Amino acid sequence: MRLLYMGDVVGRSGRDVIAGRMAEIKNRLSPDFIVVNGENAAHGFGITPKICEDFFAMGVDVVTLGNHTWDQREIIPYLDGEARVLRPLNYPAGTPGHGTGIYAGPRGRKVMVVQVMGRLFMDPLDDPFAALEAVLAKARMGAGGVDAIIVDVHAEASSEKMALGHLSDGRASLVVGSHSHVPTADCQILAKGTAYQTDAGMCGDYDSVIGMKKDAAIFKFVRKIPGERLSPAEGPGTLCAVMVETDDRSGLALRAAPLRLGGRLAECWPDW
Amino acid sequence: MRLLYMGDVVGRSGRDVIAGRMAEIKNRLSPDFIVVNGENAAHGFGITPKICEDFFAMGVDVVTLGNHTWDQREIIPYLDGEARVLRPLNYPAGTPGHGTGIYAGPRGRKVMVVQVMGRLFMDPLDDPFAALEAVLAKARMGAGGVDAIIVDVHAEASSEKMALGHLSDGRASLVVGSHSHVPTADCQILAKGTAYQTDAGMCGDYDSVIGMKKDAAIFKFVRKIPGERLSPAEGPGTLCAVMVETDDRSGLALRAAPLRLGGRLAECWPDW
Amino acid sequence: MRLLYMGDVVGRSGRDVIAGRMAEIKNRLSPDFIVVNGENAAHGFGITPKICEDFFAMGVDVVTLGNHTWDQREIIPYLDGEARVLRPLNYPAGTPGHGTGIYAGPRGRKVMVVQVMGRLFMDPLDDPFAALEAVLAKARMGAGGVDAIIVDVHAEASSEKMALGHLSDGRASLVVGSHSHVPTADCQILAKGTAYQTDAGMCGDYDSVIGMKKDAAIFKFVRKIPGERLSPAEGPGTLCAVMVETDDRSGLALRAAPLRLGGRLAECWPDW
Amino acid sequence: MRLLYMGDVVGRSGRDVIAGRMAEIKNRLSPDFIVVNGENAAHGFGITPKICEDFFAMGVDVVTLGNHTWDQREIIPYLDGEARVLRPLNYPAGTPGHGTGIYAGPRGRKVMVVQVMGRLFMDPLDDPFAALEAVLAKARMGAGGVDAIIVDVHAEASSEKMALGHLSDGRASLVVGSHSHVPTADCQILAKGTAYQTDAGMCGDYDSVIGMKKDAAIFKFVRKIPGERLSPAEGPGTLCAVMVETDDRSGLALRAAPLRLGGRLAECWPDW
Ligand SMILES: [Fe+2]
Ligand SMILES: [Fe+2]
Ligand SMILES: [Fe+2]
Ligand SMILES: [Fe+2]
Ligand SMILES: [Fe+2]
Ligand SMILES: [Fe+2]
Ligand SMILES: [Fe+2]
Ligand SMILES: [Fe+2]
Repeated sequence: MRLLYMGDVVGRSGRDVIAGRMAEIKNRLSPDFIVVNGENAAHGFGITPKICEDFFAMGVDVVTLGNHTWDQREIIPYLDGEARVLRPLNYPAGTPGHGTGIYAGPRGRKVMVVQVMGRLFMDPLDDPFAALEAVLAKARMGAGGVDAIIVDVHAEASSEKMALGHLSDGRASLVVGSHSHVPTADCQILAKGTAYQTDAGMCGDYDSVIGMKKDAAIFKFVRKIPGERLSPAEGPGTLCAVMVETDDRSGLALRAAPLRLGGRLAECWPDW
Repeated sequence: MRLLYMGDVVGRSGRDVIAGRMAEIKNRLSPDFIVVNGENAAHGFGITPKICEDFFAMGVDVVTLGNHTWDQREIIPYLDGEARVLRPLNYPAGTPGHGTGIYAGPRGRKVMVVQVMGRLFMDPLDDPFAALEAVLAKARMGAGGVDAIIVDVHAEASSEKMALGHLSDGRASLVVGSHSHVPTADCQILAKGTAYQTDAGMCGDYDSVIGMKKDAAIFKFVRKIPGERLSPAEGPGTLCAVMVETDDRSGLALRAAPLRLGGRLAECWPDW
Repeated sequence: MRLLYMGDVVGRSGRDVIAGRMAEIKNRLSPDFIVVNGENAAHGFGITPKICEDFFAMGVDVVTLGNHTWDQREIIPYLDGEARVLRPLNYPAGTPGHGTGIYAGPRGRKVMVVQVMGRLFMDPLDDPFAALEAVLAKARMGAGGVDAIIVDVHAEASSEKMALGHLSDGRASLVVGSHSHVPTADCQILAKGTAYQTDAGMCGDYDSVIGMKKDAAIFKFVRKIPGERLSPAEGPGTLCAVMVETDDRSGLALRAAPLRLGGRLAECWPDW
Repeated sequence: MRLLYMGDVVGRSGRDVIAGRMAEIKNRLSPDFIVVNGENAAHGFGITPKICEDFFAMGVDVVTLGNHTWDQREIIPYLDGEARVLRPLNYPAGTPGHGTGIYAGPRGRKVMVVQVMGRLFMDPLDDPFAALEAVLAKARMGAGGVDAIIVDVHAEASSEKMALGHLSDGRASLVVGSHSHVPTADCQILAKGTAYQTDAGMCGDYDSVIGMKKDAAIFKFVRKIPGERLSPAEGPGTLCAVMVETDDRSGLALRAAPLRLGGRLAECWPDW
């Protein structure tokens, strides 16, 4: 299978570059399953049901979120009824929504997606290592199980992301980070066959501070008093994604590569 | 001028890949000025005078450090006497060593190097924005000033690194991040001419947790009790660097690109 | 002189217990100079000019603030013009308002008040140790200088508060903490004569979570999703304060004791 | 029953004041059950089996610990075999030792003790609210259950301690905080009958920075480079404790008061 994961969509610039390039991506890369991190899609803060529907209409299979899940209150009732939108798994028991699901892919294939959130320099949720371990211990890729597993690690610290990558190695198709809003250049297949990239990077305007307008963001660091509210930068967005091709029998990664297009960053397509 | 910045060197794997590939790099890229971040060169924790001397013998012009500056006590007296080794500028007044310097490059050129350390999710030093602003307000690139300015932003948060990048835009040749130990794929020339990459990435073994052996690092996250001391992974290292070509008159960037070679990450050379 | 410092006033319960007991306090303790920390006086978040004026009308000499200084936007222009309202000194240069002042006390006495904010587990401001040192190095208690110095240390960590206390020992009349909203029982005169208490405690309803209604506060800890906005508990408030009597010549402390009255905590008056 | 809880013992000063005053305390207050927090008893860092035995020999029933549990490696094997020494309950499954126990008191009484550790500004352990809720949901005070429940909340933030106090209200005899090393003056019986004090305070030398020598502690804050290792201050210690008298049938608190004696703080005995 060919799996595509697109990183945190920030505001209109991010949504537009996805909408504008999706046909070309499908045409050129033929993805079988598409995941988008949408936690900043609604003007930088959270997501609405309407934006989720737009993503599904474009061919997105699953939308993952993160610490910004709850920014738009209207999404909260929607989460329980829409299995294709995931918030981090390791929120406490009783939290609205789901942290993992198994989804129908093409030709009868089944794809599991799970999101966990890191705790280093973030709000202390339940242990993401234990939560992910529990999911991976039950799930099986290959005969009798699912055909692929995509793990979205929404975390601040590179160390925690890598540690969760190695925890999953040999048991997932792809472990990919989100939240830092910068793509990393460390795409690799780990020792036991899991594709890994520390962060997919955002889909948004890179003439910004992590997708937000520069002046207000710098003001916050420099002045330490309340200034203008942060809002997304509005220049052309760069779509940042990771592409993986899995082995049909094992679900492990055969090839993995970044995809970046549009906006200010150097364009980069998988050559397969 | 052609400037080369290599990211955090982690242990022997990192030192070896630099030593082993330096001749090829010089031959193929002809760098005029080389900076290395050495804060993890001594078995992952700090650096020794001997390792600094080895870097200088290889052709390195300046060694920058970071939060691990003080891990090896013998470096502390060395810092005051060796202007080519920099610790972050924004330590309090009276701290041993220097945070910036102006160095002789080839053909009479002068290169300023400065390192600042971020505060988000890190020890609260003096304000890096004010400290960098003070240096950049006095320094001038171009006629009568220096020929290039390299700013090493040693920080955890991508937002703080980007904000410091924009603060410097038009006034430095290169702003490059260190500390995350993962190269970012966002190399670009900012709106006013400064080359920028959020993190250069480490020079070390990428089959690891930020350069350290996997098992001990995962144990720390999972078990929350003291385990084996962290030590560098010992597989083949990847050299991660950023290359910039500056305009002779303005000092601003004409071209910028990542350099990665060796080890597990995809090899990548500037094509100029 | 007899100095009285009242801790963080939280909402109406805090304001009411001060207004209701001020006459009795004046009558019984004859304070010469009164400082109130007002950072939570306006419904738990910040303070308004009107509330400041109410405090002054009651006989308060100086209002200090803290990290909540900026919560009510209307206070910002007021700060520059009203020297009797202080925000933490160690905000960056150019921040509205003042961090220290010298005020007229009774019988020609002069009292300096200064507030610094800690950085441990808080927003990284400028170094509070360096900022306070600079003020204390210039100020002098005793002949030719001021008659008393009151230092409000607005900080989270008990270690940082104590360290700032010892830094000031022998050079201030009183170092008293704020921000934790719980009075500490460690009132003492330090080795060189400065009165010290780690936190004065809040003036507010102690059937609460640091002055705020219990249910919403517990929800935040337990559920990790947005709930009801925090608002002040509305039961009877306890007034928490520290009283110091200084030596007329040296400005140092002769006696120091807590004052607590009203609400749920055990009543406690200085017996002098 | 009469329950006595003594806060974090810091080094020799803390151990000595307990040893020196225990006979007087027993004589004057007749405690039925004694808990000591010993996480800093071994020269400020952790505890040894020998020190635990010394406490038991003095009449201590249970020793609780905290984030410093693991500082002395020799305690780790001891924890599994000694039910009277508790580390925080909310360490991950598989952690050596126990977080709660039920102990024999005098006259056939049973006392449950439990320790949880907060997460705000601390290492992210499992959820202390869920962990404590699970214990309290199973335990019952009164007929058929235990006679008293003591909850030690080892935490940094006053808000988290108070929230855990209210969570336990009506279901425990005493919720008392540790870790800040400063006694709070907010001892009260909460609305549903549980005695509460935000922090018991340390047993140690209060001419210090949270029990450690002043100069090295201030150096750490001011200089930001490694200095002398922290070690306990060696002046006379103050014993800081909380005393509770419970109702024989309900286990709830009838009376609660601080006990402080020795060293620099004002002496204070329960008057019952
Ligand atoms: Fe995001
Ligand atoms: Fe995020
Ligand atoms: Fe590093
Ligand atoms: Fe670092
Ligand atoms: Fe505050
Ligand atoms: Fe406050
Ligand atoms: Fe402690
Ligand atoms: Fe502790």
